[in-house]
Amino acid sequence: MSASEKIQSAIEKSSWIRKMFEQGNQMKKQYGAENVFDFSLGNPNLEPPPRFKEILLELVKDASPGRHGYMPNAGFEETREAVADYLNTFNRPRFSSDEIVMSVGAGGGLNVVLKTILNPGDEVIIPCPYFVEYNFYLDTHQGVPRIVSTKPDFSLDIDAISDAVTQKTKAVLINSPNNPTGRVYPEAALNKLGNLLEHHSGKLGHPIYLISDEPYRKIVYDGIKVPSIFDAYKESFLVTSFSKDLSLPGERIGYVAANPEITDKEMLIAGLILSNRILGYVNAPALMQRAVSHLLEESVDISLYQKKRDVLCDGLASFGYDFIKPEGAFYLFPKTPIADDVAFVAALQAERILPVPGSGFGGPGHFRIAYCVSDEVIENAMPGFEKVMKRYRK
Amino acid sequence: MSASEKIQSAIEKSSWIRKMFEQGNQMKKQYGAENVFDFSLGNPNLEPPPRFKEILLELVKDASPGRHGYMPNAGFEETREAVADYLNTFNRPRFSSDEIVMSVGAGGGLNVVLKTILNPGDEVIIPCPYFVEYNFYLDTHQGVPRIVSTKPDFSLDIDAISDAVTQKTKAVLINSPNNPTGRVYPEAALNKLGNLLEHHSGKLGHPIYLISDEPYRKIVYDGIKVPSIFDAYKESFLVTSFSKDLSLPGERIGYVAANPEITDKEMLIAGLILSNRILGYVNAPALMQRAVSHLLEESVDISLYQKKRDVLCDGLASFGYDFIKPEGAFYLFPKTPIADDVAFVAALQAERILPVPGSGFGGPGHFRIAYCVSDEVIENAMPGFEKVMKRYRK
Repeated sequence: MSASEKIQSAIEKSSWIRKMFEQGNQMKKQYGAENVFDFSLGNPNLEPPPRFKEILLELVKDASPGRHGYMPNAGFEETREAVADYLNTFNRPRFSSDEIVMSVGAGGGLNVVLKTILNPGDEVIIPCPYFVEYNFYLDTHQGVPRIVSTKPDFSLDIDAISDAVTQKTKAVLINSPNNPTGRVYPEAALNKLGNLLEHHSGKLGHPIYLISDEPYRKIVYDGIKVPSIFDAYKESFLVTSFSKDLSLPGERIGYVAANPEITDKEMLIAGLILSNRILGYVNAPALMQRAVSHLLEESVDISLYQKKRDVLCDGLASFGYDFIKPEGAFYLFPKTPIADDVAFVAALQAERILPVPGSGFGGPGHFRIAYCVSDEVIENAMPGFEKVMKRYRK
Repeated sequence: MSASEKIQSAIEKSSWIRKMFEQGNQMKKQYGAENVFDFSLGNPNLEPPPRFKEILLELVKDASPGRHGYMPNAGFEETREAVADYLNTFNRPRFSSDEIVMSVGAGGGLNVVLKTILNPGDEVIIPCPYFVEYNFYLDTHQGVPRIVSTKPDFSLDIDAISDAVTQKTKAVLINSPNNPTGRVYPEAALNKLGNLLEHHSGKLGHPIYLISDEPYRKIVYDGIKVPSIFDAYKESFLVTSFSKDLSLPGERIGYVAANPEITDKEMLIAGLILSNRILGYVNAPALMQRAVSHLLEESVDISLYQKKRDVLCDGLASFGYDFIKPEGAFYLFPKTPIADDVAFVAALQAERILPVPGSGFGGPGHFRIAYCVSDEVIENAMPGFEKVMKRYRK
């Protein structure tokens, strides 16, 4: 008995994923990194916008004292005000700095919200396919995931969510634009979901929270807009980061925003701030808090991701791959032509193409391509995608 | 029911501390911040060393791609190598990058270790007085604190630790130099503790881990050295940060080091890395990882803290305060002349002096002065310290 039972079992269960990554690394050594087409990670290939570098340089040159010290656990007042101002540009409820808690990325922010609201055994409904890391987050806070299907086009199945509500339901956790499907939930769907949760909250006698994980909000295509969860439902939390839209995932900077109209607001916000502290995050990294306060309207050039999406989708469609065209994020989630997605991904891997089996997202019979890679990687992987499909296509 | 029961209760319990802080803030508004002597927080008043700024400027000017992207969850290989090299300058076991996991401060690192080793109900022995935030960390991972007394001079009571061992004991958590007492545990004490834990581990049939929280290692006085826990005991983890010695607490950068000779090393290190990921930290902030890799031998000018300690200790001793002179860290933990430390601190507060009651550290009948403040704050607080002591001294 060294590591805890849960950690040992998690390590053992994830060993096939690790094996895949190790094989990928082995391949890169053997064939050269440029001859291996790695679509496995959501690590943006685009550099942060030039304005980020400029701001960072200014901040580092600033000799005012205490720039790297502790600040309130919620974060710098100026940063939280800037976030509130930004949120006020596209939400009906009016935000002030009070409703904002700066976090260690969206991963940190999700844990802060879950720690704040979950009693042991509380259930959280999650539409599937989904980012399975959520299971670990729930488990740390002794929550129980209730995984519900989406419709075949990956849109929300409101009836399935309704059927999954029990006395123990504490929250619904959505992710739009979605990882791994690229789906954006439209306003009508959010309104339906909001009405449903209001109805069930009334019946249960406690609020069911809507937690929206939105790090891909700015990464949308064809003029689509991501609607506001705050407009759709009162008992709601937004969790997001600057990891994807500013290409800063390694810097761990994001925030939680509570709906200004949320019931029992003072207690919940005190809970978020306390949770940020006692989960060991303490506060979001200071320098990055200052940097992002000047960059709320900025993003990388999204048209570059749209181009990657289009080249990839056009290519795969011509080879007979079956998929829903992503509306946002930088993931494509095609069906595998055989039921065994792990076997299909192994076949792609033999062509030096490294995606992730859909089983890793609760979506067997699919595979995920993270196309936040260089255009060359996409182009050069095409013959391999074609070859493998030819072999399996009926 | 909005926030979880535990969070609600933690908010209510900590409300008197919050009230004190609020009163302090109110005072600063009323009298001007320069007329309020705030000794409540371990937020270093010294600026980071000049070399930190130079390195940071170089890093920000570096235009190489991917500087802010994801890296392995354990951290950058170069940073982990630099940490290993540094550890090899004062520990007998030989470190490589494999045994290092970069963390979101020491708070993050402690949670990573606890998540890795604790099964629900496992006990962790903690010598008291102590940093009570540990209780929250343990609770998140369903661990149970077993608080044991130290000797009257705050040195380790090895017999008390031995008596506290049960079948459920999974770890002993020490903090040296200590917050709040300033005590440094000498080599002989660590060796005794190591032998004791080896003995009990053998009897229990599983290792009892020694976790050493050492963010104040470089902040020591009068030529004292902090001995190595790795030399004293095989089943050991070091957790530390650059928050105090480089004055970077807001940047959340630290690391965990596992003893290279620890039993079941591969599993434990895989557990640390997995825990860093699934607790939502994901990785330590990228830019700061690169910065500290060049600053492992650096620190702020410790002689300045020693001078503060001496001025404070000389003054308080002359007024009749009773305390153990700190050997390290930047905290003084005097006895209160009356049993009710909250009342005594309230009396100091009336003189615009803001320390923290010892009850906040499991040490009632004491109060903590964080002397990481300007020399003026210390000097200007002296009359108030004298006045209050005169009133209460028998």
